[in-house]
Amino acid sequence: METVSTNTAHGGVQGVYKHASKETGTDMTFSVFVPPHTQGAKLPVVWYLSGLTCTHANVTEKGEFRKRCAELGLIFVAPDTSPRGEDVADDADKAYDFGLGAGFYVDATEEPFAKHYRMWSYVTEELPKLIAENFPADMDRQSIMGHSMGGHGALTIGLTFPERYKAVSAFAPIVAPSQVPWGHKALPGYLGDDKAKWRKHDAVALIEDGARVDALLVDQGEADNFLAEQLKPQLLEKACTDAGIDLTLRMQPGYDHSYYFISTFMDDHLSWHAKRFG
Amino acid sequence: METVSTNTAHGGVQGVYKHASKETGTDMTFSVFVPPHTQGAKLPVVWYLSGLTCTHANVTEKGEFRKRCAELGLIFVAPDTSPRGEDVADDADKAYDFGLGAGFYVDATEEPFAKHYRMWSYVTEELPKLIAENFPADMDRQSIMGHSMGGHGALTIGLTFPERYKAVSAFAPIVAPSQVPWGHKALPGYLGDDKAKWRKHDAVALIEDGARVDALLVDQGEADNFLAEQLKPQLLEKACTDAGIDLTLRMQPGYDHSYYFISTFMDDHLSWHAKRFG
Repeated sequence: METVSTNTAHGGVQGVYKHASKETGTDMTFSVFVPPHTQGAKLPVVWYLSGLTCTHANVTEKGEFRKRCAELGLIFVAPDTSPRGEDVADDADKAYDFGLGAGFYVDATEEPFAKHYRMWSYVTEELPKLIAENFPADMDRQSIMGHSMGGHGALTIGLTFPERYKAVSAFAPIVAPSQVPWGHKALPGYLGDDKAKWRKHDAVALIEDGARVDALLVDQGEADNFLAEQLKPQLLEKACTDAGIDLTLRMQPGYDHSYYFISTFMDDHLSWHAKRFG
Repeated sequence: METVSTNTAHGGVQGVYKHASKETGTDMTFSVFVPPHTQGAKLPVVWYLSGLTCTHANVTEKGEFRKRCAELGLIFVAPDTSPRGEDVADDADKAYDFGLGAGFYVDATEEPFAKHYRMWSYVTEELPKLIAENFPADMDRQSIMGHSMGGHGALTIGLTFPERYKAVSAFAPIVAPSQVPWGHKALPGYLGDDKAKWRKHDAVALIEDGARVDALLVDQGEADNFLAEQLKPQLLEKACTDAGIDLTLRMQPGYDHSYYFISTFMDDHLSWHAKRFG
């Protein structure tokens, strides 16, 4: 692991790091904020998965998470959204919603993506090991959140490993990619046409198929341009009601899909996660 | 005035606006955050002047000011750092520390800069009028802060108009441009070689020449790469001691010159400003 940069911030250290990933076969960059803490102490880890077009940098610069993480003693990890590099396949038309910057947190099985697009295993297996080895992280206290495509990632990962992630929340998540245009492009593109395989990467389908968490927190802006066509939080609401999952879905008037929205409600999400760490 | 964008954030509205400036003879872009407030209420205005290379966007995205401004009911205005446009003169070598992005908050008298580089009059006269006309701003309660070159701007403007700005503070300001390399390039470049003219744009010289404010708040990172050569806060400390100005100079171990530093102490500055608004 190579240190790209470190900056003192809110009493802790905001770092950016790079490593050669075995999963993706590429260099991967990620950011970690470590709050002020007593030497030797192990701190809970909040995972933040970013949305389409983003890298680690968007939330690191605009997420406004550091002050509250410092107050609550939370490590905050932000991975990239796809493998990157000269030999990494991209969308044929270089569209923003598939390929580079749009890994959708799956392990691709379709060519030419299968070689590098292994974001599921990267985020759930390889990167956690690296974090455990290099940071004062209590890996028995992890939680996960994300935005849009990263909200999809947080929900599907949280629902798949309910013992591992003590809290799961999302900002404007894609709750049912099997039912919306972004997913109709990404899921067959990465996983092929067998819709049964899609269900493991669709939060609503996972819940329908029996996946459970105690509770979920979701904030959704009512002025979000993607709300009606791509996000459809009502599908998650129905699935949670049917399954008896305690979903707190907060529709936020006036808010859009941007980091102005995320940063406004970041404190609430971090507090909710910290409470669930006990 | 044209609205470039508005986003709901922390209960208020973060806007970016553009207008044809008479002072600079160019279009000028600036950002304004208006916190949640009762209709008809007039709110205090905090001016934030940015540093070298910045536009309005840097602090708008990375400054982490909105939450506290919303809590305290403060309007936050961030102008650009220079005129911009095809016919605007730049540094001969396109260096970062003179010309575009480096207006130093002076009215240039030297050619080819005199035509457009009128940032002093723009920030102290033209833009305040526009703000008063278009936002719920109480112009009897203004304050000013800034970073680096913008800290220089905030100090010199605050010292020149002590009745107008109820609070003056800075992050890592250039306190004495007459005595450091950045100023040795910018002051003759914009104002000519007569050093007497420089003194009105040098906070330490202004204080030596009799300018007074009740109090100043300055934060300075000890790990700031520009500290020893360009910033020299000890010169401001001596001038304030000699003049009886109540300077709070906080040297912050580990902090550098970046927005990670600024955002950490932004809350403190906003609270200090709000207290002085009464």
